[in-house]
Amino acid sequence: MEKVPRSEIRQRIERLQSLLLSRGLSGALIFQNVDLYYYTGTIQSSVLFVPGKGDAVLMVQKNWTRARAETSLETVVPLPKGRRSMADVLRDCGFEPKGKVGIELDVIPADLYLWLCTRFERCAWEDLSPLIRLQRMRKSPYEVERIRMAAGILDKGFRALCGIIREGMTELEVDGHMALIARRLGHMGILRMRGWNQEMTYAHVLSGESGAMSSFLNSAHAGKGTTPAMAQGAGFRRLRRNEPIGIDYAIGVDGYVGDQFRTFVIGALPGPLQAAHDCSFEIHLRFQETAGPGVHCDALYAMALKEAERAGLQAHFMGYGEGQVHFIGHGIGLEIDEFPIVAPGFRKPLEPGMVLALEPKFVFPGEGLVGLEDDYLVTPNGVERITLTDQTVMKVLCD
Amino acid sequence: MEKVPRSEIRQRIERLQSLLLSRGLSGALIFQNVDLYYYTGTIQSSVLFVPGKGDAVLMVQKNWTRARAETSLETVVPLPKGRRSMADVLRDCGFEPKGKVGIELDVIPADLYLWLCTRFERCAWEDLSPLIRLQRMRKSPYEVERIRMAAGILDKGFRALCGIIREGMTELEVDGHMALIARRLGHMGILRMRGWNQEMTYAHVLSGESGAMSSFLNSAHAGKGTTPAMAQGAGFRRLRRNEPIGIDYAIGVDGYVGDQFRTFVIGALPGPLQAAHDCSFEIHLRFQETAGPGVHCDALYAMALKEAERAGLQAHFMGYGEGQVHFIGHGIGLEIDEFPIVAPGFRKPLEPGMVLALEPKFVFPGEGLVGLEDDYLVTPNGVERITLTDQTVMKVLCD
Repeated sequence: MEKVPRSEIRQRIERLQSLLLSRGLSGALIFQNVDLYYYTGTIQSSVLFVPGKGDAVLMVQKNWTRARAETSLETVVPLPKGRRSMADVLRDCGFEPKGKVGIELDVIPADLYLWLCTRFERCAWEDLSPLIRLQRMRKSPYEVERIRMAAGILDKGFRALCGIIREGMTELEVDGHMALIARRLGHMGILRMRGWNQEMTYAHVLSGESGAMSSFLNSAHAGKGTTPAMAQGAGFRRLRRNEPIGIDYAIGVDGYVGDQFRTFVIGALPGPLQAAHDCSFEIHLRFQETAGPGVHCDALYAMALKEAERAGLQAHFMGYGEGQVHFIGHGIGLEIDEFPIVAPGFRKPLEPGMVLALEPKFVFPGEGLVGLEDDYLVTPNGVERITLTDQTVMKVLCD
Repeated sequence: MEKVPRSEIRQRIERLQSLLLSRGLSGALIFQNVDLYYYTGTIQSSVLFVPGKGDAVLMVQKNWTRARAETSLETVVPLPKGRRSMADVLRDCGFEPKGKVGIELDVIPADLYLWLCTRFERCAWEDLSPLIRLQRMRKSPYEVERIRMAAGILDKGFRALCGIIREGMTELEVDGHMALIARRLGHMGILRMRGWNQEMTYAHVLSGESGAMSSFLNSAHAGKGTTPAMAQGAGFRRLRRNEPIGIDYAIGVDGYVGDQFRTFVIGALPGPLQAAHDCSFEIHLRFQETAGPGVHCDALYAMALKEAERAGLQAHFMGYGEGQVHFIGHGIGLEIDEFPIVAPGFRKPLEPGMVLALEPKFVFPGEGLVGLEDDYLVTPNGVERITLTDQTVMKVLCD
């Protein structure tokens, strides 16, 4: 089992400390599983205190043995539920949080926030999440390697699907096979999205008109699903010939996610949908030529939109009607909705070490969804595709 | 696709209104997907306002068409992002929230809470979640039927596994097959847990010593998993003869979850583990004899603990060492951690309509996990097992 290397943890904490100081924060309390994992290497029930200066303190509720074994932090102390207060435990370690202290306001529940207000009366809470998200935006070589491993599993899955998909099979059955392939190869069994109320199924398998169904999800597609209680993903619809089967596949290795989309077909796509897929492919080529350090995300979005307009496809671009969303890419890492966002208004330039999923897609009401989503690493000179799968429409073999 | 019947929605809203009035609340704002689904029939991005008296208002951000189609509520209005405020939209509908208003403090993020404080200055927020959880504790016949359907899928899955599991197969491969079976039969593709930071993989497939590994999860077992970034569930361990293979399987139909556990074996269990399984079975029998309306949850826990003590197994009961947890059952419904909790300190009596998963399990360090989890409906006269699967150890057929 891969543990996060000590050097990674040390660098991450040091970088956070310099960010805290630059914003005038005296420290940070970190609660959420993903953020805990990033800074400590464990998601055992704990609270991490990172002071502006000095050693971070990991206070562990459950499971102590496992947390000790997983983290390379040196100051790991028990936080026995209901027996000692967090403030007491921190005082024993030489810390009394006060002044401006960061907490993850976008993910911690309101009742935890209110509890903190009563327990740390000398603290003025500031939202730490923007800092964390900006820090996590740039990946280390260690992190990129994990995403490459995830991309390897996705490639095996996509290629295997060409031999599994058959006419008449339900979307759900294809989805199940994808889960079997992914888990067998080591998918960690969860996909994490930071956004509040943004839930996901492991995959989207959306055939024909289901691909054009939008939902609560902040995505160009959602699909019919099996129930309004989930309202997305594969359903009981059976696959037909000559219609698009849009497959979004995301899996995680050592916490890190790969997220890709391929259009499958039994037979051939209708002409206008094939043309839309060609446009998606064209946007990827243009991105590969254009993107790199210093290039702004909103400029990349504008470039993609222009390509869609040139093909007369702007009404279908990234959704249709009220289902249209206004981004074509997002960072990936421990969560699937990381920075940067390739969207109008996201005015940050790309930087080396960013990893993002670029997903220009086209939606045709009543007909379906086509497109291409690949993962890219921003390198010092441009971008590198870290997806292994071919970029053409995937032809089903059991035709 | 099954929609929540209009009569269900009406009764749920009316019941909530009477609860609000009984606690002196003038209304409630509901945000979380599961709670939205319960009161509206949709999880499309929305906010639900339930006044103490009068029609509830569903304010929809995305997707309008789908929300309209899914809910049977009559007052459904758009809540266009950044264009009209929630307060304005409510005012148009004749409501001005003030005084004590309920919100879901345990699940909404802190930043949403802080935003509400600035937008509704005349409101004093109260935690609505205890009321919601108490209301959802008693299921309607419609809801029980959904859980029965989930139990039907679990039974097919457990029986199929007897013919799939083989010596040398990895836990992950078994887990993948379970996902394939479940999705093919209509599992909705998500399991929801209300507890903060309590994440789950679809299933636990824990063989040998992996079954004795505890983690952050509030459960008697967690398993090794594939990475500390998830720290639970199936891993690359290969199944061996004559060791317990503990399988926790949970799936959802129309939003409602079935949650069961079976012990599998290739060959035969070691004597002490078989005895522990017998004790788990015995606890189920005693529960079936004893439980029913009016019986207190903590008394049922005490009964189970006494059985474990009589068998000399108290050190292994519901975990071992620091991994020991102090409950043997929990309500199931739209979430997997519903009320009631069969635990010391949960002093509520059972009531007809409650559905709970009873899961007496025994953990042996270095050896594994055995036990039995079944789902029960509290009837006017006692309890009814709504699990279809046989309660003995499941013998693998490809032996």
